[in-house]
Amino acid sequence: MTNPTDPQRASRRRFLAGAAGLAAATASGRAARADNSKNLPPNVPDWTRSLGDGVGQRAYGQPSKYEKDVVRRTVPWLTATPESSVSFTPLHQLDGIITPNGLCFERHHGGIAEMDPNDYRLMLHGLVDKPLIFALEDLKRLPRVNRIHFLECAANSGMEWRGAQLNGVQYTHGMVHCVQYTGVPLKILLEQAGLKPNAKWILAEGGDAAAMNRSIPLTKALDDCLVAYRSNGEMLRPEQGYPVRLVVPGWEGNVWVKWLRRLKVGDAPWYTREETSKYTDLLADGKARKFTFEMDAKSVITSPSPQAPLKQKGFTVISGLAWSGRGKIKRVDVSLDGGRNWRTARIDGPVFDRACVRFYADIDWNGEALLLQSRAMDDTGYVQPSKDDLRKIRGVNSIYHNNGIQTWSLKPDGEVENVEVG
Amino acid sequence: MTNPTDPQRASRRRFLAGAAGLAAATASGRAARADNSKNLPPNVPDWTRSLGDGVGQRAYGQPSKYEKDVVRRTVPWLTATPESSVSFTPLHQLDGIITPNGLCFERHHGGIAEMDPNDYRLMLHGLVDKPLIFALEDLKRLPRVNRIHFLECAANSGMEWRGAQLNGVQYTHGMVHCVQYTGVPLKILLEQAGLKPNAKWILAEGGDAAAMNRSIPLTKALDDCLVAYRSNGEMLRPEQGYPVRLVVPGWEGNVWVKWLRRLKVGDAPWYTREETSKYTDLLADGKARKFTFEMDAKSVITSPSPQAPLKQKGFTVISGLAWSGRGKIKRVDVSLDGGRNWRTARIDGPVFDRACVRFYADIDWNGEALLLQSRAMDDTGYVQPSKDDLRKIRGVNSIYHNNGIQTWSLKPDGEVENVEVG
Repeated sequence: MTNPTDPQRASRRRFLAGAAGLAAATASGRAARADNSKNLPPNVPDWTRSLGDGVGQRAYGQPSKYEKDVVRRTVPWLTATPESSVSFTPLHQLDGIITPNGLCFERHHGGIAEMDPNDYRLMLHGLVDKPLIFALEDLKRLPRVNRIHFLECAANSGMEWRGAQLNGVQYTHGMVHCVQYTGVPLKILLEQAGLKPNAKWILAEGGDAAAMNRSIPLTKALDDCLVAYRSNGEMLRPEQGYPVRLVVPGWEGNVWVKWLRRLKVGDAPWYTREETSKYTDLLADGKARKFTFEMDAKSVITSPSPQAPLKQKGFTVISGLAWSGRGKIKRVDVSLDGGRNWRTARIDGPVFDRACVRFYADIDWNGEALLLQSRAMDDTGYVQPSKDDLRKIRGVNSIYHNNGIQTWSLKPDGEVENVEVG
Repeated sequence: MTNPTDPQRASRRRFLAGAAGLAAATASGRAARADNSKNLPPNVPDWTRSLGDGVGQRAYGQPSKYEKDVVRRTVPWLTATPESSVSFTPLHQLDGIITPNGLCFERHHGGIAEMDPNDYRLMLHGLVDKPLIFALEDLKRLPRVNRIHFLECAANSGMEWRGAQLNGVQYTHGMVHCVQYTGVPLKILLEQAGLKPNAKWILAEGGDAAAMNRSIPLTKALDDCLVAYRSNGEMLRPEQGYPVRLVVPGWEGNVWVKWLRRLKVGDAPWYTREETSKYTDLLADGKARKFTFEMDAKSVITSPSPQAPLKQKGFTVISGLAWSGRGKIKRVDVSLDGGRNWRTARIDGPVFDRACVRFYADIDWNGEALLLQSRAMDDTGYVQPSKDDLRKIRGVNSIYHNNGIQTWSLKPDGEVENVEVG
């Protein structure tokens, strides 16, 4: 671990010497401009010379106009229709571990259901003593908990199975976000309904046009699942399942059913199309892995990355995210030479169970070409594998569960490219 | 502490019996309506019958149209102009500990400075070996940390010194928010500039039209202050000081200078108008407390509250926030009878140093009138006082640093009023 207040101080001193010189030049440029404007003193910008907007004009705040390119992005050729498609979180433009609600990636199967919360109902039936129907207000009156968890689509990095494809961390890894959820433990609802002795699985079904559904083992449902209605304090956004979604900590995103309308308790999985023709992992020998719920430990460097090149030499901070569906992230290593040598990154900020963690590694970049990688370890002892090691076992038929080590090639001009290494 | 999965189970069972009956009636009402619409099966709402909006239409997401009244609100008569005014966070409509960026309260002295990040500069000068100027990109290249902290205006609850005034937790306590900040430890910048032996204080000055400024002891600056540029992962919002503000953990909001343009190191405080005519606490004997930076432990029940009345009898959850500028919240108690009897609330979610924590207390409300209170304790042993105890020591001349226990009167009809007891 590096002490954040004491890394490579000599290098930082050199960098700062350069920075101060640069700033002095800019300041004289500004003074020249100010001479032409109303004879006001130089170096006093407009925003100090006049009153800004008052309060009350922005009842719900928005980002600065200068941040208008910090947005979710789509890849139009990726899917046949926008209703069954994906938008990606701009990981290269974020830091810390919390994703702002407006930038959480989307994945829909039938578009965004626009539910009226007054007409919202959740039905709980099947192998229970007493079927129940809950209105939203009923759920809000029950005991609730707050949990910070990552949510990752099973297909995140899926295009990379067959080699480096997409040039940007937003596209290779942007189907992950991390927020604080508030919701009712599913266990409370199931206990109220009363489980029959042969209850073993639940079916979760959405109220969207796809009636998206998945079978979930009852052990998981009773362990830590939430029937959630808030994200980062406020009600869920429409594209995240407003008013109610399932939270299934550590498991692939498609089981976190959005616009949740029905929970059916059964004695076996339902084998719906979403767990047979889709969301199974076709291996090289033609067999398919099924019910591969857990997301293995993974990490990626978010900056520098193809969308966030380096603008100058000198001191800078490599920043990245790591997460594991099996527990807490224990350690993250960073390599500058494509995996030959590794150094331990500094994890900064809180480390929660099955949540994103932020890691940093300070470097003094002299302009040489680098092959940047990161490698996550979780508290089960699992170590993030190389893409090649994954391919040896899983082949390249699936688009799901690619948690291989990502390589960014940093060029002498500061540009970064998505590449594969041996 | 109450086990969230096992509180008052019998009461919950009664509540749920009522809920299921209600839902059944609603479902048959819906079936009757569906008969008149295109002969589609009953109980299939519009949002399931047709495709929703696809991805890509909402590059930066917004709340549901059904949540349009979840907004910051102003009290127009509170200040002379909107440029030097306040908007309040809707605490009664939120849960968990993270405040979404769009709902963080605002306090400006000269309106919102709209800074161009390309022209942003931070000057560090005074009693230093080498004055420095930083562009935004310079700050972004330095080591950074992520910290979840509350930010509370010194005047939060200030109207309540002279008795119960404002009817709503948004107005009595809504000048507090809690986010994850990302920034450079101020210590790093000061070390790079090099401090002269007689350096004791720093002046932080904003680039807004008010040139808002405050003196801060150097010990605090070297301890835990951040020069921050992100909130909940994304860049600061304009009304929160975009692109750079000071983070001064646990201290009153006005020293968290926004649109930070200058840090001057000196050997004594500057006694600017913001720390003489304002932000001092006038006592009953005419003396004034000065430099009262730390925010003492405080808590408030956010629901039920005047803006969030109870809609029916039965099982429900009392929800609230607690925070302390001196450390971690250790315990929160809740009273239903105006402070005669207390029970320990359940703290749920993470407890960070000088951050908001969420507490809950489950009740089975039979419709009787209640006097709801909460009382926070922090890890220094400090206990939140009654308003009367505060007034005995501080009088009622100041509007600052009122952390007294708040009382909500819950009426048999479920309405809630801001009252004083004892």
